[in-house]
Amino acid sequence: MNNNGENKTTNEQKYPVLSKVNYPSDIKQMDVAELKQLCKDIREYLVDTISEIGGHFGGGLGTVELTVAVHKVFNTPYDLVVWDTGHQAYPHKILTGRKEALKRIRKFGGISGFLKRTESEYDAFGAGHATTSISAALGMAVGRDLNNESNRKVIAIIGDGAMTGGMAYEAMNNSGVLKSDLIVVLNDNRMSIAPNVWQISNYFTEMISHPDYNKFKAQIWDLTGKLDAFGDRLRKIAARLESGIKAVVTPGMLFEALGFRYFGPVNGHNLHQLIRIFEHVKTLKGPILIHAITEKGKGYKPAEGHIQRLHASTPFDKLTGKAYKKEGAPPAYTTIFGNALVEIVKQNPKVVGITGAMPDGTGLDILQKEFPKNYFDVGIAEEHAVTFAAGLATQGIIPVVAIYSTFLQRAFDQIIHDVALQKLHVVFVMDRAGLVGADGPTHHGAFDVSYLRFIPGMVIMAPKDEAELRNMLYTAVEYKKGPIALRYPRGSALGVEVKPGFEKIEIGKAETLKSGDDVALLAFGSMVNYAMIASEKLEAQGIHAEVINMRFAKPLDTNLLDDVSTRFKKIVTLEENSIIGGFGSGILEYFAEKNYKNDLLRIGLPDKFVDHGTQEELHKMLGIDPDGIVNQVIHFIEIKKSKEEVSV
Amino acid sequence: MNNNGENKTTNEQKYPVLSKVNYPSDIKQMDVAELKQLCKDIREYLVDTISEIGGHFGGGLGTVELTVAVHKVFNTPYDLVVWDTGHQAYPHKILTGRKEALKRIRKFGGISGFLKRTESEYDAFGAGHATTSISAALGMAVGRDLNNESNRKVIAIIGDGAMTGGMAYEAMNNSGVLKSDLIVVLNDNRMSIAPNVWQISNYFTEMISHPDYNKFKAQIWDLTGKLDAFGDRLRKIAARLESGIKAVVTPGMLFEALGFRYFGPVNGHNLHQLIRIFEHVKTLKGPILIHAITEKGKGYKPAEGHIQRLHASTPFDKLTGKAYKKEGAPPAYTTIFGNALVEIVKQNPKVVGITGAMPDGTGLDILQKEFPKNYFDVGIAEEHAVTFAAGLATQGIIPVVAIYSTFLQRAFDQIIHDVALQKLHVVFVMDRAGLVGADGPTHHGAFDVSYLRFIPGMVIMAPKDEAELRNMLYTAVEYKKGPIALRYPRGSALGVEVKPGFEKIEIGKAETLKSGDDVALLAFGSMVNYAMIASEKLEAQGIHAEVINMRFAKPLDTNLLDDVSTRFKKIVTLEENSIIGGFGSGILEYFAEKNYKNDLLRIGLPDKFVDHGTQEELHKMLGIDPDGIVNQVIHFIEIKKSKEEVSV
Repeated sequence: MNNNGENKTTNEQKYPVLSKVNYPSDIKQMDVAELKQLCKDIREYLVDTISEIGGHFGGGLGTVELTVAVHKVFNTPYDLVVWDTGHQAYPHKILTGRKEALKRIRKFGGISGFLKRTESEYDAFGAGHATTSISAALGMAVGRDLNNESNRKVIAIIGDGAMTGGMAYEAMNNSGVLKSDLIVVLNDNRMSIAPNVWQISNYFTEMISHPDYNKFKAQIWDLTGKLDAFGDRLRKIAARLESGIKAVVTPGMLFEALGFRYFGPVNGHNLHQLIRIFEHVKTLKGPILIHAITEKGKGYKPAEGHIQRLHASTPFDKLTGKAYKKEGAPPAYTTIFGNALVEIVKQNPKVVGITGAMPDGTGLDILQKEFPKNYFDVGIAEEHAVTFAAGLATQGIIPVVAIYSTFLQRAFDQIIHDVALQKLHVVFVMDRAGLVGADGPTHHGAFDVSYLRFIPGMVIMAPKDEAELRNMLYTAVEYKKGPIALRYPRGSALGVEVKPGFEKIEIGKAETLKSGDDVALLAFGSMVNYAMIASEKLEAQGIHAEVINMRFAKPLDTNLLDDVSTRFKKIVTLEENSIIGGFGSGILEYFAEKNYKNDLLRIGLPDKFVDHGTQEELHKMLGIDPDGIVNQVIHFIEIKKSKEEVSV
Repeated sequence: MNNNGENKTTNEQKYPVLSKVNYPSDIKQMDVAELKQLCKDIREYLVDTISEIGGHFGGGLGTVELTVAVHKVFNTPYDLVVWDTGHQAYPHKILTGRKEALKRIRKFGGISGFLKRTESEYDAFGAGHATTSISAALGMAVGRDLNNESNRKVIAIIGDGAMTGGMAYEAMNNSGVLKSDLIVVLNDNRMSIAPNVWQISNYFTEMISHPDYNKFKAQIWDLTGKLDAFGDRLRKIAARLESGIKAVVTPGMLFEALGFRYFGPVNGHNLHQLIRIFEHVKTLKGPILIHAITEKGKGYKPAEGHIQRLHASTPFDKLTGKAYKKEGAPPAYTTIFGNALVEIVKQNPKVVGITGAMPDGTGLDILQKEFPKNYFDVGIAEEHAVTFAAGLATQGIIPVVAIYSTFLQRAFDQIIHDVALQKLHVVFVMDRAGLVGADGPTHHGAFDVSYLRFIPGMVIMAPKDEAELRNMLYTAVEYKKGPIALRYPRGSALGVEVKPGFEKIEIGKAETLKSGDDVALLAFGSMVNYAMIASEKLEAQGIHAEVINMRFAKPLDTNLLDDVSTRFKKIVTLEENSIIGGFGSGILEYFAEKNYKNDLLRIGLPDKFVDHGTQEELHKMLGIDPDGIVNQVIHFIEIKKSKEEVSV
């Protein structure tokens, strides 16, 4: 890495135009030639910066021209630009006062990897989850109308991946009904996060490449040409025919049915064309859709054609595009899960895996390779994913729905209404449960225990390590009686030995890992390991903590809790989930039911949104890392002790 | 009402064909003439039955022919029929063994108003929330493929209202990608729940009624006719042209882009045509869409053209179609809310109301009439509704999102990610919070306090009566600082005096309604009134209960709780929400934080799905009506007393 003090951003040789640009106002007077150089500079700067620190940048490379054209033509931030998820928005950040800040993007205390209203007035709407942009932009457009600010433009920029989400359709439908002035740019890189999940895109491609279609089109042109010879009346008809046929042969009609005027497809890397079309539509009324074809990773050779690799990225070698390998880290939970599922499918072909456009992120790419028929990528469509799984379950198939904790929030109603109410056996596997690190508050899996725990019949598990993850997955698949959920954190597992084969875990059964007599630490999932480390540190201070791997947030091991309540005055619950309504609250509820009077301390995520940073930094900041736990436990014991002394 | 023992269903004169039919097997040999009479009988029987007991039946009248045709052609229940929501499915219930049972539909212990897997093997999938059918059916179709049961057909029947929901689009998109054999019937009565929210339908209508379009079409037919004269080659081109044009002029293309073969539109009341088309598509591969045009309320004069009235219905006069009026009941909370919002909008034109296709159900129809520009019906699209509101909020508009507690589950992620994380001032008004009665488990608002309480910055209120509802709505609109939610039950308010104007309520401030010294009843929302009644009954038994209207589930009135904890050993929380993670759990959490050692009893909804019945019946069954509360409180006090005696 190059940290020798050379200030690259002011390096006029390296970035001749970008070095002069900090805000959109700096580009208003530039001509297309200069703006083209700016695009080149931005690409260079993006690769230089992100290769050193890691980050999503394939999407950003695809939107350089779009971004420059938008800020050239529109009067931002007065005009409101809504980027759908932030991955595409790095160039936007560079052009809106955050060029230097990009060097600390996604770092603790640095700028966010997504759009964020509190970060910049140019970020009209925050977004980490996909498919929200048209809804938000329509709200802004209607707000603009109600405020009588008719000269304010509203632009949503949405990728084709996000277009697989139902909200986009809901929002377009509503836009068509309301007819407010609104510009939607479809940033179509034809890849989404994973390719080929948007059928409409498949349809375009098929239609345009089909030989019959081309023959038909040729014949029509031929015919309309001939008709020309038959005089005025037929010529007019021919002209109308042509426009009719055009409607058939472009994707426009689809969007027109939803009430949008369609422009495109345009080359999303042709700056001149983009500027011209933005200038044109700026003055038009009603909902407008501009269909821009772009290329993810555009302009950076190692990225072009390696889409999956470049969606999310750790630091990498700029020349080869290859990520630097972490030395000696244990495998990720994601990989452990992916491999375990393949082993299970090998034994039981009725088991299938379902992802919402995240095959790599969830580890289902492994299943896809081994058992493509048991693998389903439904698009960024978590609602459908869950009800689709419910349908499968009615036929005796065992669906394993692998959706990040934060994204499963999208399917909350479907979990209740379509799965739990019907007691269908669907397995929910939530990767990224707890704090996810650099992706920050939009992506933290802070709530899943809380939002699943009150659903009747739901089983909620979390493994202490990768060996237990395997066994829990197996247990979940074998469960049969209804919905069952499994959560684990982002990142590396613990590196424990993994035995071949699987063992069933008794539902609702905890295990005591370490005996003690001063305080009981009831830990759930990722916090078991921290609790063990903390207990060693407490031991050094003469405090003997019992550590229990609770395994289940629902049902609770009530026999064990009865026992613990008699043996310990002081009990601590530990979870990487909100302390409101979560695992610890479940313990409180049980203790209240039994009228147990122990002192209870709940350690978990606070009642606030937590910013980004590494997982370790965030745990430390919140006092839920081993040292923080030690402090909290000592404070808890002492407070209570001093209180008791006073009351005695 | 006619309850004189005459058994109508076996009345051969009245229902000559239906009297012979109990199961689909009974109609397999019938010819179209007989089936037409069956349709007539079903309509007659539906109106006869539902006019006496109340229920949704406008939708059912529209699907009589569809239902008969489906059960005639398909091999149910082996073939799987998935009805999207149950409103359309009354004829289906009549034909599948539940003709007699219809007389107790939606009654306590009777059959459900919706589809229910445990009720009949003919109900392939339960549904009370809209837009789930295509997802579920696709799951079944894929399950069928994996099970190698290629002769099993899967049919989803979905209304145009449900087609405004994003899940339908997600599911169709995924169907197009997967290409499993699947038949979707679009039951298009062009009315949804409220008219004109599905833009695609508007588009069809506009296109077909546009004079230019008709002129264009005439010219094309004219032209293709003329081309005929030019010999073979041109004739061929003309034929192609025709099919090309046909694609332009039918809605087919839309569905074809999503990977469906389109058939239609067909007259959904032409039994012969429906049977023919079902017979035809039965043998086809891949996803098929049949577009059937139907009429809600078809065949019952007072219903035709009075769509809103007939969506949900209390008992009514069969001849006039007019509902019997409840004598002397206080106005519904819904109406109180609708009127209050109109008063608020009158004062502050920046306030707008948003509904997801439920103007009447939410009371927003009143706003629609008075201030149409401040009223938005976004379709059955709760996700979009909330993010649309977030967009509005960024522009200084104050959106009041009026969505039933159960339907707001659909927008759970949007509340977190788009509203709360950005601290946007959106007001959530949840009607139908708590047990809703006859609609049953799919519609109970059992979870909202639990699913909102852990969202950082969320304020959650519930009024004790209609006067407080008005003031809470006003408080919410004036709040400004972030998201704020308000819940109240289905049905009549208490009939208390409502003063003109509004008063702000201090956020997080409870009020003591009645002093006592034996036990404190901390009640939330609808349970305040029950707690007051219970306290009178307790008084009669010598138990002096203090009753506190807590008003807020978040933030809690901690000053009051501190005081209560010192004054009472025994404290009861009361809420019409799950006792897991709800209001009572919030009190537990606070008491644990303060290490208060009071005895706490949480009264609320149990950790199970509650069936249908009247609200009173269900409250009684669960022991949360005033008498049930009295019993629980006495038991709670005594148990604890005896325990204390033992320990002393």
